[in-house]
Amino acid sequence: MLDLRLGESLLTTTIHGVKPMKLFFNNASPFVRKVRVFVRETALEKNIEEIATAVSPVTESPALSKANPLAKIPALILDDGSALFDSPVICEYLDTMHAGRKLFPASGPARWTALKLQATGDGILDAGVLCRYEMAVRPKEFQWAGWVAGQTKKWHGGLDLLEREVGTLDGEPTIGGITVACALGWLDFRYGDDHWRDARPRLTTWYEKFLARPSMQATMPSA
Amino acid sequence: MLDLRLGESLLTTTIHGVKPMKLFFNNASPFVRKVRVFVRETALEKNIEEIATAVSPVTESPALSKANPLAKIPALILDDGSALFDSPVICEYLDTMHAGRKLFPASGPARWTALKLQATGDGILDAGVLCRYEMAVRPKEFQWAGWVAGQTKKWHGGLDLLEREVGTLDGEPTIGGITVACALGWLDFRYGDDHWRDARPRLTTWYEKFLARPSMQATMPSA
Repeated sequence: MLDLRLGESLLTTTIHGVKPMKLFFNNASPFVRKVRVFVRETALEKNIEEIATAVSPVTESPALSKANPLAKIPALILDDGSALFDSPVICEYLDTMHAGRKLFPASGPARWTALKLQATGDGILDAGVLCRYEMAVRPKEFQWAGWVAGQTKKWHGGLDLLEREVGTLDGEPTIGGITVACALGWLDFRYGDDHWRDARPRLTTWYEKFLARPSMQATMPSA
Repeated sequence: MLDLRLGESLLTTTIHGVKPMKLFFNNASPFVRKVRVFVRETALEKNIEEIATAVSPVTESPALSKANPLAKIPALILDDGSALFDSPVICEYLDTMHAGRKLFPASGPARWTALKLQATGDGILDAGVLCRYEMAVRPKEFQWAGWVAGQTKKWHGGLDLLEREVGTLDGEPTIGGITVACALGWLDFRYGDDHWRDARPRLTTWYEKFLARPSMQATMPSA
């Protein structure tokens, strides 16, 4: 029974140290990149085996669907074969697997700030990815400009919020900053002609500095 | 500056007790229902003022967009006007505002089980809501059967996972069970002709019992 195996696996890893885990990944996915940056920021690279996975909302990967029936990446397979998803859950789990500074603040204002930033970055990506599916996956005759306009307004709004609240990104990296950086990197990758930096100078300055981190440089998106 | 206000507000609420909060809500939204059930399970009703909100991916609510520029519900407005989102963040925040049993287990296997269940329920809903938008919001000439088929496969897969791992739903309610119940309730509301109960007898039994809880009965979806 998978439910029991999940519990046993987590107990085992806690008691005996980090066991090898498998990450279904794709270099183009910004949600996967969050996990890959997180793994590098927490020095867990040696504990993660990455499995290249091609998947879209209309093209399945059988191995992935077996692990995560929602058929989405990232999915993290623990040593007993049970799976964790989505990216917030995977990252928070990995944060318990290393002895360094925690990237999910344990409690109080720092935690809500980090989780709100993560939700903002993920929300920008949800809307951006839906635009991308509309234009790159959906047949041309079924594309609807109203949908793209509505989703674009969402991610533009999210970027404006980040510019206004850019001070919440200050300090050592958290899951919040990692998510925001992966969102901005994905916009550069897929929507370079949107020029998100225009009128968002403080967010731009923050991002350029964050982008220099080895974890970001090692995980640049590619098609 | 919103970032500082968020921090001050949270400190204030922690030190001086629960301040009034405002919840942008809609009776049809399953993600809002998660929060409304959570509020009732934790006896926080008196601390939440609910603000009825009509919104779709292509129809804005100006008041909502000001609070949450991603233009999605639920959004929780704290006493200083700063906002928290999305539903997992709001629920985890509310869990710190009451003195009873916590619905987010603090650590260990119980936490990952609850968060995986939440991710599964939310994933079922993400796919289901995208199907709904396709058929009910998008003009008929732009509807694509391939998209509906792909998303439907995801939520069917999520339901099958819940049937296999139904044992993880046992015990006192957590954010996991609340999310799954709201997902199933939304499927009954919008996709009653999908007959999700067929071939999922254990999940059905669990749901019928959970549905009897006053928190669920008080938050039945309506259009």
